[in-house]
Amino acid sequence: MLVIMRDHASADDVRHVVDLLTEAGAEAHLSQGEVKTIIGVIGDREVIYSLEFEGLPGVEQVVRVLKPFKLVSRDFQPEDTVVRVGATAIGGGAFGVIAGPCSIESEEQMLATARGAAAAGATMLRGGAYKPRSSPYAFQGMGVEGLRLLREAGDAVGLPVVTEVLDVRDAATVAEYADILQVGARNMQNFMMLDELGTMDRPILLKRGLAATIEELLSAAEYILKGGNRDVILCERGIRTFETYTRNTLDLAAVAALKSLTHLPVVVDPSHATGRRELIAPMCRAGIAAGADGLMIEVHPDPEHARCDGPQSLTPGDFATLMTDLGPRVALEGKRMGVVS
Amino acid sequence: MLVIMRDHASADDVRHVVDLLTEAGAEAHLSQGEVKTIIGVIGDREVIYSLEFEGLPGVEQVVRVLKPFKLVSRDFQPEDTVVRVGATAIGGGAFGVIAGPCSIESEEQMLATARGAAAAGATMLRGGAYKPRSSPYAFQGMGVEGLRLLREAGDAVGLPVVTEVLDVRDAATVAEYADILQVGARNMQNFMMLDELGTMDRPILLKRGLAATIEELLSAAEYILKGGNRDVILCERGIRTFETYTRNTLDLAAVAALKSLTHLPVVVDPSHATGRRELIAPMCRAGIAAGADGLMIEVHPDPEHARCDGPQSLTPGDFATLMTDLGPRVALEGKRMGVVS
Amino acid sequence: MLVIMRDHASADDVRHVVDLLTEAGAEAHLSQGEVKTIIGVIGDREVIYSLEFEGLPGVEQVVRVLKPFKLVSRDFQPEDTVVRVGATAIGGGAFGVIAGPCSIESEEQMLATARGAAAAGATMLRGGAYKPRSSPYAFQGMGVEGLRLLREAGDAVGLPVVTEVLDVRDAATVAEYADILQVGARNMQNFMMLDELGTMDRPILLKRGLAATIEELLSAAEYILKGGNRDVILCERGIRTFETYTRNTLDLAAVAALKSLTHLPVVVDPSHATGRRELIAPMCRAGIAAGADGLMIEVHPDPEHARCDGPQSLTPGDFATLMTDLGPRVALEGKRMGVVS
Amino acid sequence: MLVIMRDHASADDVRHVVDLLTEAGAEAHLSQGEVKTIIGVIGDREVIYSLEFEGLPGVEQVVRVLKPFKLVSRDFQPEDTVVRVGATAIGGGAFGVIAGPCSIESEEQMLATARGAAAAGATMLRGGAYKPRSSPYAFQGMGVEGLRLLREAGDAVGLPVVTEVLDVRDAATVAEYADILQVGARNMQNFMMLDELGTMDRPILLKRGLAATIEELLSAAEYILKGGNRDVILCERGIRTFETYTRNTLDLAAVAALKSLTHLPVVVDPSHATGRRELIAPMCRAGIAAGADGLMIEVHPDPEHARCDGPQSLTPGDFATLMTDLGPRVALEGKRMGVVS
Repeated sequence: MLVIMRDHASADDVRHVVDLLTEAGAEAHLSQGEVKTIIGVIGDREVIYSLEFEGLPGVEQVVRVLKPFKLVSRDFQPEDTVVRVGATAIGGGAFGVIAGPCSIESEEQMLATARGAAAAGATMLRGGAYKPRSSPYAFQGMGVEGLRLLREAGDAVGLPVVTEVLDVRDAATVAEYADILQVGARNMQNFMMLDELGTMDRPILLKRGLAATIEELLSAAEYILKGGNRDVILCERGIRTFETYTRNTLDLAAVAALKSLTHLPVVVDPSHATGRRELIAPMCRAGIAAGADGLMIEVHPDPEHARCDGPQSLTPGDFATLMTDLGPRVALEGKRMGVVS
Repeated sequence: MLVIMRDHASADDVRHVVDLLTEAGAEAHLSQGEVKTIIGVIGDREVIYSLEFEGLPGVEQVVRVLKPFKLVSRDFQPEDTVVRVGATAIGGGAFGVIAGPCSIESEEQMLATARGAAAAGATMLRGGAYKPRSSPYAFQGMGVEGLRLLREAGDAVGLPVVTEVLDVRDAATVAEYADILQVGARNMQNFMMLDELGTMDRPILLKRGLAATIEELLSAAEYILKGGNRDVILCERGIRTFETYTRNTLDLAAVAALKSLTHLPVVVDPSHATGRRELIAPMCRAGIAAGADGLMIEVHPDPEHARCDGPQSLTPGDFATLMTDLGPRVALEGKRMGVVS
Repeated sequence: MLVIMRDHASADDVRHVVDLLTEAGAEAHLSQGEVKTIIGVIGDREVIYSLEFEGLPGVEQVVRVLKPFKLVSRDFQPEDTVVRVGATAIGGGAFGVIAGPCSIESEEQMLATARGAAAAGATMLRGGAYKPRSSPYAFQGMGVEGLRLLREAGDAVGLPVVTEVLDVRDAATVAEYADILQVGARNMQNFMMLDELGTMDRPILLKRGLAATIEELLSAAEYILKGGNRDVILCERGIRTFETYTRNTLDLAAVAALKSLTHLPVVVDPSHATGRRELIAPMCRAGIAAGADGLMIEVHPDPEHARCDGPQSLTPGDFATLMTDLGPRVALEGKRMGVVS
Repeated sequence: MLVIMRDHASADDVRHVVDLLTEAGAEAHLSQGEVKTIIGVIGDREVIYSLEFEGLPGVEQVVRVLKPFKLVSRDFQPEDTVVRVGATAIGGGAFGVIAGPCSIESEEQMLATARGAAAAGATMLRGGAYKPRSSPYAFQGMGVEGLRLLREAGDAVGLPVVTEVLDVRDAATVAEYADILQVGARNMQNFMMLDELGTMDRPILLKRGLAATIEELLSAAEYILKGGNRDVILCERGIRTFETYTRNTLDLAAVAALKSLTHLPVVVDPSHATGRRELIAPMCRAGIAAGADGLMIEVHPDPEHARCDGPQSLTPGDFATLMTDLGPRVALEGKRMGVVS
């Protein structure tokens, strides 16, 4: 941490900052220029992140050099984390494709989707049993009955299943049915849920919040790793900007940045990011080229009657065509579908 | 809802949309121009919000005319909601000032704050027992012990107390100690928590999410009212934008807009919005002038040693000076401190 | 400037940075921690702003401590700049109200507006002769004929006139007719125009760009002052965010921040910021309370037939009512209409 | 255009809107629901874009169905526009790579860059002679002397040259030296410049503004086409968001969206979008996969001594390596370097 003093800050102001630092257990190193004094601070992460010196007399700016995360960083663990579920893997050269509907609606719907997804080469099946909806008048999901249908559909075709934990109180129940637990964008900073998931023995798929920076996404993952759970998959799903043509703005540079900052696998969700069916295929291609370790794609056997996200869902047929196109692209990046290369 | 068809969409495409609408229980009204056909849809809120026709063949755009909320709107209830807690009130001409530290740290800290706040004319006391922090290495709050200290401090000076529910599992416990339950910005779309709070008999202070639109804030409040709890106070605390000089961008036009859209009281939190002590006073003044029903201000007896948000906290002395300045401004807007005028 | 090296950067990397600094004419001061080396850089503004060391081997982050502006800062000139035009002034306690239509449309329109504005107490008259419009199919303004009508209307009621320079080639012509030259939001970083206006003897009203930070606004003003023209009025008119209920998001904390960072007067334009007539009055009140030195308000004698911005224009009657409300509020802030207090 | 009336708007309010429409030369079609009346408006683009009915009594919302542009749309011209310069082309299957330094600094620098760029397979050479810089204390470019050096370097290696017009007064001079004229992000809505460039016989490279929507970018291009110049290349270079890790947020979904909305070629500038050298290669790959028709990449023979954008510049060696990687990717999309496929 650096504390930058205002031009010609008084000696008293400087001494005051140094005293507070010492008191907190940190070390202060002064660098006095002609007009500016800069105080370098050395101390451990817990101490540094407890110090908030902005606003002290004579202080102009505080720069935090130490990142707010450690376990998730590539500095801490240079080699890729590989998240394994049953026979499939994601990360470390293994590319994952998670396909399925926004919401679980019926046995037929799930079976049709599962069969189509598996036939086309998806490595995991997804479906929402609890749906976060802006309006209380929109469909809220089937609950436990949905979890059961998802599990059965996954088992029927031999694919692991991923589903969202919307309420921390349901985490254990969801874990009974699902192989991977998803944290939705709106819960990325639901720290109590992150703490709880950190103690569980299921991999976590953590979606980036609508207004979350790359650093905040990594800090959220740090909560889970700090709890002991090392299997976290990050998901870029678009951030909220002024552009309204797409539902959100897919930040593919964040994918490339994350791949250099962390050892955790990163997947891209073009469905929620764009909200437009015609943009799914180009954004899948771009995501792969940007270095993603996987994709998350909404597939529904009958998008027109979908209870949620129909406009951005692919039919199993569309999905199969897309997968045929994507295969060589994954290979071009030196990755293999579901298998560590 | 309006379904706007593409230029020269085929008769089949139009018929298909009309069929889907009828099937869903809505009524369709066609308006055929020379190049464009527009389909007006009549139906109740539940039906309308279950229809997602974007992406259907021939469909260019879908415009939702019906708002995703009802109970919170001024159309539904023209007169102001007044939230009453003990002897104090907020809304309907009653102006509330909620003061206290970001985090509860000790008995002395809370008593000193409570005395200073009460003496200066605050109408409620706040303090955080559970702290949402981006980094897991930052201070996370005192928990139940903090709730006890807050309650005691409030009782000692006769002020009702407000505190955040960070985990839905703690809601009942928090309600044992607090008069008003706060939902933080990061939980504004934690729908399971909103559902739970909708069944409780405590007023809710609902903070706007960092990336939440005015319509989403109102929809979140609708969840609570739909559950039966009519006492919701909305809080504007800044949205996330590209500007980094301030911590967030305080959206005071949203306050004025909310006052016309809803009957619920609206308070402004300049401390979190700006993150800079020197901007608190001007933003309190501007908030009052914009039509707010109250303010939420961070006060700490020793900001330099605060474990959280020190840079934006006022001392009790600063706060007293500020309150002296604000009094006549509240009166100028035809409002009274803590009392329905 | 601080150059923060990566953890355990090599001695060679550090030496390389120091060499480049010395070569450029700056001084380097090393501060070596256990894991991190930080290089403080001392040099003059031109040198510092020519150094871009991000991306050099071993460099993690570069922090610019020196602001990119000097002449506009309060450190450089502590006392308020007062911009005087004829008998009226803005800044230093003088409050200005600039009223008039978005676009100049006819002699009758301008005379009716001017009379209404003057009678209600406006201190300056505005009107656009050249209109920046997103679509080439929208009305583009009357040009020189419009300038003449504006001048005549101003003269008829004794008010100075303000109008936008849309094309740098027209600057001299506009200056023949107008007392104050406006730079629109879309031209805030049209640096060639700023250079040109810096050599002219007319005060400049500089509007903040839709995506411009406070620092960029001040840097744009610095261009004008550096050219020799010291009379710049800054204008906050809303920034572009994800919120769509209002046309832009009015950033009133920026007004308070600017008042502390610069000696230049700051005005607020609630008309363009909100795009909604019903929000003009509360945002005028809030702007005054936030510390603004003036307001810029769209007034049109017949908003329904306005060729531009009708939805946010007030009638002369509405404007008179508003001015009656605002008078005591300006006085409450210790300011006087058009006169240095 | 649709005018959506408030619930139970009065018959008078409806009639008033219809009268104003008729008066303006448009046709009104009423659609009366139980609670809502919707007025469909038929008329030509000029008329529709002159009507601003938001704020009229009884009006809730106005939806513009007709786009603000025509000539640039795929509906108007389904086949791709191919921009040809000398022996090279961009669009219609021809992929362009524009390489060169941010700013022109010397003959040696330009020659070294040109030779490296040409040898590696670039199809055009770029370099800035006039530099838009936020701070007036940063390097502003070499001016005409720079244009001459750029031209000579391009001629020496047989590559067409692209450079920015910063000041509309310099457009003719720049056109004497350059093959393609660039409009920078900060001038995207400098409508007078767009008008001027619309009359010139040079292709225009139009960069998206930092806060410009896709629709505004297309409307800006429409200005140029409306003036008679049909050769416009669009450039996605990142938009401004809350994320600060990258300089801007590269919006690759906008590239895919533009390809479906317009016939104009679209290029991607990963250098300005990310501001980080290590993200250039992945974003080039992702841009190609998203459907771009070309790339614009900053190359400098000595990035450490570059007077501008060093941190994001590639050396000629890095650039050659990158081009080797990109070649097969361009072919995979069915495109050819500089040649219509």
